[in-house]
Amino acid sequence: MKRGGELPDVRLAYETWGKLNADNSNAVMVFTGLSPGAHAASSELDPSDGWWEPMIGPGKPIDTDRYFVVCANSLGSCRGSTGPSSENPATGKAWRTEFPELSIEDIAASSHALLQHLGIERLKVLVGPSMGGMTSLSYLNQFPGQAEHMLSISGCAAAEPYAIAVRSLQREAICSDRLWKDGNYTDEKWPQTGMRMARKLGMMTYRSAFEWKNRFGRERQDRYPQQTWGMYFQIESYLQAASDRFIGAFDPASYIYLSRAMDWFDVTDGSADLDEALKNSGLQTACVIGVETDVLFPVRQQAAIADALSRLGAMVDFYAMPSHEGHDAFLVDYDRFLPVVADYFNKLD
Amino acid sequence: MKRGGELPDVRLAYETWGKLNADNSNAVMVFTGLSPGAHAASSELDPSDGWWEPMIGPGKPIDTDRYFVVCANSLGSCRGSTGPSSENPATGKAWRTEFPELSIEDIAASSHALLQHLGIERLKVLVGPSMGGMTSLSYLNQFPGQAEHMLSISGCAAAEPYAIAVRSLQREAICSDRLWKDGNYTDEKWPQTGMRMARKLGMMTYRSAFEWKNRFGRERQDRYPQQTWGMYFQIESYLQAASDRFIGAFDPASYIYLSRAMDWFDVTDGSADLDEALKNSGLQTACVIGVETDVLFPVRQQAAIADALSRLGAMVDFYAMPSHEGHDAFLVDYDRFLPVVADYFNKLD
Repeated sequence: MKRGGELPDVRLAYETWGKLNADNSNAVMVFTGLSPGAHAASSELDPSDGWWEPMIGPGKPIDTDRYFVVCANSLGSCRGSTGPSSENPATGKAWRTEFPELSIEDIAASSHALLQHLGIERLKVLVGPSMGGMTSLSYLNQFPGQAEHMLSISGCAAAEPYAIAVRSLQREAICSDRLWKDGNYTDEKWPQTGMRMARKLGMMTYRSAFEWKNRFGRERQDRYPQQTWGMYFQIESYLQAASDRFIGAFDPASYIYLSRAMDWFDVTDGSADLDEALKNSGLQTACVIGVETDVLFPVRQQAAIADALSRLGAMVDFYAMPSHEGHDAFLVDYDRFLPVVADYFNKLD
Repeated sequence: MKRGGELPDVRLAYETWGKLNADNSNAVMVFTGLSPGAHAASSELDPSDGWWEPMIGPGKPIDTDRYFVVCANSLGSCRGSTGPSSENPATGKAWRTEFPELSIEDIAASSHALLQHLGIERLKVLVGPSMGGMTSLSYLNQFPGQAEHMLSISGCAAAEPYAIAVRSLQREAICSDRLWKDGNYTDEKWPQTGMRMARKLGMMTYRSAFEWKNRFGRERQDRYPQQTWGMYFQIESYLQAASDRFIGAFDPASYIYLSRAMDWFDVTDGSADLDEALKNSGLQTACVIGVETDVLFPVRQQAAIADALSRLGAMVDFYAMPSHEGHDAFLVDYDRFLPVVADYFNKLD
């Protein structure tokens, strides 16, 4: 692990779509954001909708008739891959806070091992939205010349203080919950209150104030009993219900580890010299997309990535999307995102 | 009280600067934001700096050589005025959550009673930043024809869902703290953890991501022992230290009551017809200021106030300040604010 320690045993849950061609030259790797698993799109084995269903599939912008697409659950996550709630073979119990400190670099390196295992020496396209955008840059930095093209969406080269502040407060909410017990929670007693607050705070940074104004206004809620300090307006019941859907399906320790990995990430390793960090990437082209209403990964961060790659000789398409959907736009504003991604993939040979 | 119930006894802590003239026509009322007390500026009785020291005083933009300036600690607050931690005369104990539901309208009405007591029938200028901007509009609505001019800064006519979401989560943090005890905390055992989180979240919405990027970058902190999940970056220690300074000096119940009062505020009472709500204000002029980086009271809300007053016949100056300081700009970006406020006051005969 980059920050010290090692994992004696690593499992990565992954899914693939399409067929690897004869010279293994049509592989697309999709790095995920903080919370999704490997199920990015439906398949014969699992026909349920994936988290990026409109984007990946036969005839879709990331066209599985042409590409062999791979998506893995990130190392450290809780959707099948090794993470803090996996069993520590040395003790027979869950790692929890004994899990080694996780970094984005470790996520990229573990994905590289997966691709080696699949016989893929060189990726056609690296795809990364949000945290996946960080992982993509780390991949370019660690494995020069092993990716031809990159689609980078709402990512960044290094976490900024506002995003760190948000994530730090999310962790504080979880770790302040008396059921956190320094990671010694159980399936019955776990830090639900802290997780709920962390998720609500997340949602406040994933979407935009403008969207909520139009969607909820000042309407009253009737989903829950009315309360004086909460559960009066629709925005309050919306956040409650949406948080409760999420938190039952995500492990608190995984959340903490992945959250901190994003804070620590700086592809320049403190030098602030992005050109130096990416100079050997060997990328031929890149499509870099940001969203003007994104407060968590502001569009200036994607512009910086686009500028650096351009200076290094890649052909770069850069888009600052005027979407009202904020950081999550790539998951909801498909009217804007599908044509742009389709256009980029169509240009690749 | 607007939402029901009554207070048997009300005390307002207030300060004044300058002298009321012979016909009581030079009075300026300053409504505060959520947390400040009545000490807006230094005086002979209290020479310590006030919360708006550069703005109010002899020869300053709000010139106490010309105006009689009044500032009160808001009803419901904890800096001398009656609030949830005042004694309930019926029980001899602090009101806490037995305090009646508080509204911005009550704050405006109690200030009106104070002005009556001071012999002021008509204000020369109504001044209100942040929550004080809400109170100013409520004052215009409740007491038509009793103010000639208004300086409104980073306020709004009705809370939007994003701001409600932020405040709702702040209250959730406080009320989830097991030391909150439904308001039955003590001076020794009080919801410090929840208050700290609430304050940190507040700070995230009072300033701007851009300011923090330039001020803190990714620098490491050395003020506290390093922690894995927190206290690693300077932004984290800054928020911790600044929160701890605040929370020791503000009562949790007051915080909750004032916070909810802001959520409930809608000067149109649900009709969304701002012109109707303000039509009898009788304002001659207004200066309405917003800040482009304000995420809590976005500048479109100040524009809406300016537009309505303009349609109603007032002469309106509207400024969308390109400050990087966010909602708190009026407290820190004096280079921009002092000249604009001075200019406005100089124009008033």
